[in-house]
Amino acid sequence: MASAEFRPLDEKSLIEYIKATPSLSSKIGNKFDDLTIKEVGDGNLNFVYIVIGSSGSFVIKQAIPYVRSVGESLPMTKERAYFETLALTEHGQLCPDHVPEVYHFDPKMYLIGMRYLEPPHIILRKGLIAGVEYPLLAEHMSEYMARTLFRTSLLYRTTSEHKRAVAEFCGNVELCRLTERVVFSDPYKVSELNRWTSPYLDHDAEAVREDNILKLEVAELKSKFCERAQALIHGDLHTGSVMVTPNSTQVIDPEFAFYGPMGYDIGAFLGNLILAFFAQDGHADEGNDRKAYKEWILRTIEETWTLFQKKFTALWHQHKDGPGEAYLPEIYNKPELQQLIQEKYVKDLFHDSLGFGAAKMIRRIVGVAHVEDFESIKDASKRAACERQALELAKTLLKERRKFQAISGVISAIRKLQS
Amino acid sequence: MASAEFRPLDEKSLIEYIKATPSLSSKIGNKFDDLTIKEVGDGNLNFVYIVIGSSGSFVIKQAIPYVRSVGESLPMTKERAYFETLALTEHGQLCPDHVPEVYHFDPKMYLIGMRYLEPPHIILRKGLIAGVEYPLLAEHMSEYMARTLFRTSLLYRTTSEHKRAVAEFCGNVELCRLTERVVFSDPYKVSELNRWTSPYLDHDAEAVREDNILKLEVAELKSKFCERAQALIHGDLHTGSVMVTPNSTQVIDPEFAFYGPMGYDIGAFLGNLILAFFAQDGHADEGNDRKAYKEWILRTIEETWTLFQKKFTALWHQHKDGPGEAYLPEIYNKPELQQLIQEKYVKDLFHDSLGFGAAKMIRRIVGVAHVEDFESIKDASKRAACERQALELAKTLLKERRKFQAISGVISAIRKLQS
Repeated sequence: MASAEFRPLDEKSLIEYIKATPSLSSKIGNKFDDLTIKEVGDGNLNFVYIVIGSSGSFVIKQAIPYVRSVGESLPMTKERAYFETLALTEHGQLCPDHVPEVYHFDPKMYLIGMRYLEPPHIILRKGLIAGVEYPLLAEHMSEYMARTLFRTSLLYRTTSEHKRAVAEFCGNVELCRLTERVVFSDPYKVSELNRWTSPYLDHDAEAVREDNILKLEVAELKSKFCERAQALIHGDLHTGSVMVTPNSTQVIDPEFAFYGPMGYDIGAFLGNLILAFFAQDGHADEGNDRKAYKEWILRTIEETWTLFQKKFTALWHQHKDGPGEAYLPEIYNKPELQQLIQEKYVKDLFHDSLGFGAAKMIRRIVGVAHVEDFESIKDASKRAACERQALELAKTLLKERRKFQAISGVISAIRKLQS
Repeated sequence: MASAEFRPLDEKSLIEYIKATPSLSSKIGNKFDDLTIKEVGDGNLNFVYIVIGSSGSFVIKQAIPYVRSVGESLPMTKERAYFETLALTEHGQLCPDHVPEVYHFDPKMYLIGMRYLEPPHIILRKGLIAGVEYPLLAEHMSEYMARTLFRTSLLYRTTSEHKRAVAEFCGNVELCRLTERVVFSDPYKVSELNRWTSPYLDHDAEAVREDNILKLEVAELKSKFCERAQALIHGDLHTGSVMVTPNSTQVIDPEFAFYGPMGYDIGAFLGNLILAFFAQDGHADEGNDRKAYKEWILRTIEETWTLFQKKFTALWHQHKDGPGEAYLPEIYNKPELQQLIQEKYVKDLFHDSLGFGAAKMIRRIVGVAHVEDFESIKDASKRAACERQALELAKTLLKERRKFQAISGVISAIRKLQS
């Protein structure tokens, strides 16, 4: 069964598939009588089935060769399932607490079997819209990013390992192209796929397309995205790619993974938290003005970066005599020089993160794919007001990112827009 | 014959090989009676045979699996011959006037047959030591660099082509590792392979190893070398990789080729011209004070960059509606924005080139492999004086490269050291 040619499964054929696949059937104790199967793919690109039996559960994710929400007219390589599996496995080894375990991969069916993230796990974005605090979120996400990014970079890897892995992930080019288009290109030109809260943001969208400095800066970031193989990044680390409970944080859906700039992941996460922040005024009502919650989001943004920086440099310190070939111990291990290189590295990474985060924010406001944080604000004029603040911040971050010395400056800039 | 397993050829077995290889034997009109074969490999890594008959000629270059000058104790992958062939072919298509034609490649014998660059072609470095002016050198080298670098970058290529080619050249990792070691690492630490004109430069060599800012800057360049797949670079473009006559300029030996930063090639060439400049005082004698020649070298440095910049941006302009995906026409084709992005790109490339050029100079003075420009100066104290000036300039360029606005500033800095 596992060696069949590709065919999209439905709920019925899925059961047959599971029966023929020991690594899956064993997870449900080989019991099929009490199985419930639910298709839950709310994304654009895949079918996702939750399979629950009395003795166990798992999730099946199957890539289909077109963008699901558009249809067969927009083809999309199924091979992304292979790279998603590679990334889940690699990141899972580096950070098992925050990456769901892979049970099974079928390269011909482009099908992944993995841990079912049971309730009360929900998509972080939905929690942020509902106003739920996750006290461990910054701790967990900084841990995930520090471990996965550090350990797949030349700070930890040899050149030989690095180039081998870079070459393999060059195969995920179609997903990279999609990012290049929707993040770095479409928002800056007239594109029929673009949309925004019209007519309120018509001028704002036009201003983005007419802003030479913004376009100059986004080109530099695109260039880094295309050319700089710094680490194995998740590639789509927004708040819809994270599932949470108050105690658990799980990063899912790394189908855009490739060797790219670290700041793209960090920026995606922070940028989407900032979007969540600016959406709060649209979710405020008489029972909850969201003021306290907005403070929690700001604290989480600040803590995520601060903890990331701390953990990342701690890993660096811990492995400074390790296999990484970027900074050889014989040259760089004097304490004062160690400090200099780490400060420089982290400063550059901070600026990259702000730039990429800003680009991700902009594309969610004037590009093709929007975020539920704003979309769920029914009143268009209220939504536009929220979006405009986010867009203004993003433009500042993108154009002036190198002037920010610390995350506290970003928090101040956010507050300033609200005063 | 072409399908045999690898065995190093000698002059006798080479004749048998040629007889069995139509693409080679046809080049000498299938006449073997009057053949002369001469082994001329003066490099570190290969056997090179010149094969001349009455009806034609070619060169055979065979990679052997160790560093020739050291012996079998220092293994070196033969696969470099494959990447050399790929690069010769690719660069040859882009710039046929300045790259020798490949006639034959045998992937099992790691053997390339290519055009013999007949006399009066000599290695440029030897011409520079002899004080010979090449009035077309700047024109030709700027043409070669502009065409090969532009056309293999995302300014001309699609992301799909780019990632496919990047992945393939990741296989040339051993040669990249060698560069990382001898250019970016060894000169900055105690290494038994390092040498310098002792005792004169003992303190200078130590100062390089103790200079934190220098090491910080060289780390940034190493990082770019390892991570940034900007274009298919030659990877070893010093003046020993160029053969010249007054009318012809031919770039050879791209076995270090891979997708790396453009500035590495430009810097290698300019840096080695600067070394040639500082060596001139050591070659001056009563008959020739080399003053005029030094001016010619300075003019050539300035013209090479100026012409490169002109040709590179002309190619960009010519292909601004072409397939390149870095700057999409719909976003970037307004004239004032075009100018902004080109100025920024070229400025960044200029600073990269100065940094890499400086690193290449430093390693030739305190690292393992020196240049004949200095080595041929018999008087050690005179040699050390020349080398020290070059080293001082290189340190300035590496540490303060971002302060240089134009190539004229570099020429001024060179002159200042001599006043």
